[in-house]
Amino acid sequence: MPDIIYILEMIGVVAFAISGMIVARQKNMDPVGVFTIGFVTALGGGTLRDLMMDNHPLYWIKHQEQPILILSMAVVFSYSGLAGRIRESRIVFPDAIGLGVFSILGAQLALDLGHSWFIASLLGVMTGTFGGALRDTLCNEVPFIFRKDQIYASISFAGCWLYFLCQWLLASESLALTIGLLFIVIARMAAVRFDIRLQRDHHG
Amino acid sequence: MPDIIYILEMIGVVAFAISGMIVARQKNMDPVGVFTIGFVTALGGGTLRDLMMDNHPLYWIKHQEQPILILSMAVVFSYSGLAGRIRESRIVFPDAIGLGVFSILGAQLALDLGHSWFIASLLGVMTGTFGGALRDTLCNEVPFIFRKDQIYASISFAGCWLYFLCQWLLASESLALTIGLLFIVIARMAAVRFDIRLQRDHHG
Amino acid sequence: MPDIIYILEMIGVVAFAISGMIVARQKNMDPVGVFTIGFVTALGGGTLRDLMMDNHPLYWIKHQEQPILILSMAVVFSYSGLAGRIRESRIVFPDAIGLGVFSILGAQLALDLGHSWFIASLLGVMTGTFGGALRDTLCNEVPFIFRKDQIYASISFAGCWLYFLCQWLLASESLALTIGLLFIVIARMAAVRFDIRLQRDHHG
Repeated sequence: MPDIIYILEMIGVVAFAISGMIVARQKNMDPVGVFTIGFVTALGGGTLRDLMMDNHPLYWIKHQEQPILILSMAVVFSYSGLAGRIRESRIVFPDAIGLGVFSILGAQLALDLGHSWFIASLLGVMTGTFGGALRDTLCNEVPFIFRKDQIYASISFAGCWLYFLCQWLLASESLALTIGLLFIVIARMAAVRFDIRLQRDHHG
Repeated sequence: MPDIIYILEMIGVVAFAISGMIVARQKNMDPVGVFTIGFVTALGGGTLRDLMMDNHPLYWIKHQEQPILILSMAVVFSYSGLAGRIRESRIVFPDAIGLGVFSILGAQLALDLGHSWFIASLLGVMTGTFGGALRDTLCNEVPFIFRKDQIYASISFAGCWLYFLCQWLLASESLALTIGLLFIVIARMAAVRFDIRLQRDHHG
Repeated sequence: MPDIIYILEMIGVVAFAISGMIVARQKNMDPVGVFTIGFVTALGGGTLRDLMMDNHPLYWIKHQEQPILILSMAVVFSYSGLAGRIRESRIVFPDAIGLGVFSILGAQLALDLGHSWFIASLLGVMTGTFGGALRDTLCNEVPFIFRKDQIYASISFAGCWLYFLCQWLLASESLALTIGLLFIVIARMAAVRFDIRLQRDHHG
C-alpha cells in the first residue's frame, strides 16, 4: 500500500508541476519562474498544511528528490520545445489523481495529529488545492478555484468526508482510502466532462 | 471580562468575514471562493500572527466553531439574495470593533509570550489588518490598507501603544484594554466620518 | 568577521527596504504601505526561510532594531522629497550586496540546522530573493525574478553552490563566505552591466 501511495503521489506532483510550468510559460517567464511556479504548484499546498499544523520538517525538505525532480523538469521544459506541445487537456487526468491523493493524505495526516474531522477536511482541501491558488496569485490572476469554474475544491471536501465515513463504518484504512481517492478522481473527471459547476454566471 | 471579549471577537470575525464575502461576490466568485475569502479575511491576520510567534495550535484550529460559522455564512451568502442587500457602509461599525479587538488582543498575546512593546505593536497591527490585505491580494487588488485611503492600520498602531501606556500607568489590564479598544473604534469611525487620511493624492 | 557580516547585512536590509519603498511610492501608496512594502522586501525572504525551517524566534523579532530602522526610513521617505530623488540605478550595488549576504547566510543557516546542500541552496535563494517576490505580489505585479530579466535568482543559486564547494575544498569558513559573496556581487553587477539573461523574448 505505501508504495502505491507514493507512486500516486509522484503522479500528482508531476501533474501539478506541469500545470504550473504551462501557466509560467504562458506568462512568458524565464527558467527561474518556470521552476518556482512548478515548485509552488506541486508542493505549496502541502507546505501550507505542514505550517498550519506545525509539522516539521516540511514534506519537500524530508523528500528532497521531489524538488530535484521539479528542477530537472523545469530545465527540460524551458530549453526544449516540450512546453508548446503539452496541451492542458492532457493533464486533466493526472491532475485529478494529484487532487485525490493530496486531499486524502492531507486529511489523514491531520487526523493522525489529533485534529477533528472538520479541521482535517479543511486541511485536506488546503493540501489538494492551495498549490494551484498560490500559482495563480503569483501569476497575478484571481485563483481559478474561486471562479465559477468546474467544481474542484468542493469535490476534495466531499471526498475527505466520504473517506472519514468509510474509515468509521468499514474500519479498514486502505479500503476507505481507496474509496475516497476513487471518488475524487471520478467526480473530477465527470465535472470536466459534463461541465458541472456550483454556480453559473447569469450572463453565461 | 473574557465573555465580553469573546463576544466582541465574534462580532469582529463576522464583520470581517462579511467584508470578505462582499468582495468575493463583487469578483463574481463561486461559493468556494466566497468561503475562502471570508475565512482568510476573518482569520488570516491571527493565523499570520500565530505563525510569526510559533504559537500553536492556531486560533482557528483551537476554535473550530469559527470556521464552521464562516462556512455556514458562505452557504447562506451564496445561495440567498442576501449578498446584494448588505451594503458595505453597514459593516463599518462592526469592522471597527473587529479592528480594535483583534489589534489589542494580538498585541496582548505577543506581550504574554515575552515580546517587546515594539514587536507586540507590529504583531497587533498584523492581527488587525492582514486579513484584509490577504483578501485584497487573493482578489488581485493592491491591498486597501496601503492606499491613500482613510486611516486604518495607523489607528491600530496608535491604539496598541495607548493600550501599553495605560497598562503601565493604570496597572489595570481590563481598564487598559477598554481604553485601547474604545480609542480604535472611535478613531476609525471618525476617520470614515471626517475622511481623515495620512496623505492625499495630489490630483485629488 | 561577525561585525563585518552584520554591517553587510545592514547594507542589504537598507538597500532592499529602499527598493521596496521606491515601488510603493510609484504605486502611490500612503506611509503605511511604504513601511509594509519596505519591511516585506527587506525581511520577507528571511522570514519565509525561518518559517520553512521552524527556526524561532524570527530574525526580525530577535533583531528589532531592523524593523525600527525601516519604520524610521518609511517616515522620512514619505514626508520628505527624498522619494523622488533616489533613482533605482543607484541601489543596484547595495542591492547586489544584499542578495549576496542574504543568500550565503541563509544557506549557511540551513547547513547549520543539518540540511543537505540542495535544500540549503534552495533556502539560500529563498532568503535572497523572496522579499522582492513578495513586494511585487503585494504591489499586484508578476514578480520580476520570474520575468525574462537580467539574471538574479540564478546567480544566488550558483553563489550558494560555490560557497559549499569552497567550504568543502578550503576548510575555511570565512574564506568560503568571502568568495561566495564576492561572486554574487560581481556576477550581479556584470549581469546588469552586460544585460545577461537566461532567456530572451522572441519579440525583443
